[in-house]
Amino acid sequence: MRILGIDPGLAIVGWGVIEKRGFHCIPVACGAIRTPAHTKTEDRLLSILNDMKALIEKYKPDEMAVEELFFTNNITTGIAVAEARGVILAAAAGHGLPISEYTPPQVKQAVVGYGKADKRQVIEMVTALLKLPAPPKPDDTADALAIAYCHAQCLGSRMAPYFNQ
Amino acid sequence: MRILGIDPGLAIVGWGVIEKRGFHCIPVACGAIRTPAHTKTEDRLLSILNDMKALIEKYKPDEMAVEELFFTNNITTGIAVAEARGVILAAAAGHGLPISEYTPPQVKQAVVGYGKADKRQVIEMVTALLKLPAPPKPDDTADALAIAYCHAQCLGSRMAPYFNQ
Repeated sequence: MRILGIDPGLAIVGWGVIEKRGFHCIPVACGAIRTPAHTKTEDRLLSILNDMKALIEKYKPDEMAVEELFFTNNITTGIAVAEARGVILAAAAGHGLPISEYTPPQVKQAVVGYGKADKRQVIEMVTALLKLPAPPKPDDTADALAIAYCHAQCLGSRMAPYFNQ
Repeated sequence: MRILGIDPGLAIVGWGVIEKRGFHCIPVACGAIRTPAHTKTEDRLLSILNDMKALIEKYKPDEMAVEELFFTNNITTGIAVAEARGVILAAAAGHGLPISEYTPPQVKQAVVGYGKADKRQVIEMVTALLKLPAPPKPDDTADALAIAYCHAQCLGSRMAPYFNQ
């Protein structure tokens, strides 16, 4: 079972592909789609759409896991992330990928064991769990691997784990 | 100059194509892209992406005008509209269409002459201005024509009109 994890954004889309084999998770590849600032939003969205298609065609994941959108104080950033998320979901649907969504506390619970863990702990744990030689950069990539790992855990338990939010 | 006006949404995307000839605006076609409720969000987004591409290929507009996103109290609806807007913008960028964005008060000002006009007035005025035999249905389609008309007015004045917000 190959899982593509996605941390959506307009400037940076973190991505990570892992392979779930029995109880083990093996990292396959990870990276980030970046779109240049000071270019038109629509061109950035098109570039995310095309890069997502290329990523899915290259790594042929069986499923996709993506972070659920949380709105904080910054509505402008929230709109931009939602627009990027729209093209990411459409790209996955175009390849028939089943999509699962997880909130940040769910991802933290699955990776660190504590739904209110901080960013640093998530990065350290995902590095250890996937036996990576170094913490993935940028943080969005580490988050994407954490989301993929969270989905692998949920699949493993064959039921939603107890999320201590 | 052919303008495609879009009123974005996940359930209904209103669209309207008008042709600006000198001081006149002539309606070309209008309608709505509808996506079925109770289907997966990603499939609805993919269907909007594909229908937008087909629309652009069929009517070959020179420019696109779209409603700028306003968040009201319903954040969940706002996220869904932003996700739909993302794929609409990406579809337009894929065809190299220049995109202009207008807020609801700007559209009302351009069509009714009053930025706080109500929905009914906008529909009546757009029906009269474009000499349509009847008010376009659904309201999203009338809004899309109003957005296209607003863009035609802005192009005509070669400067942003004074918006009485």
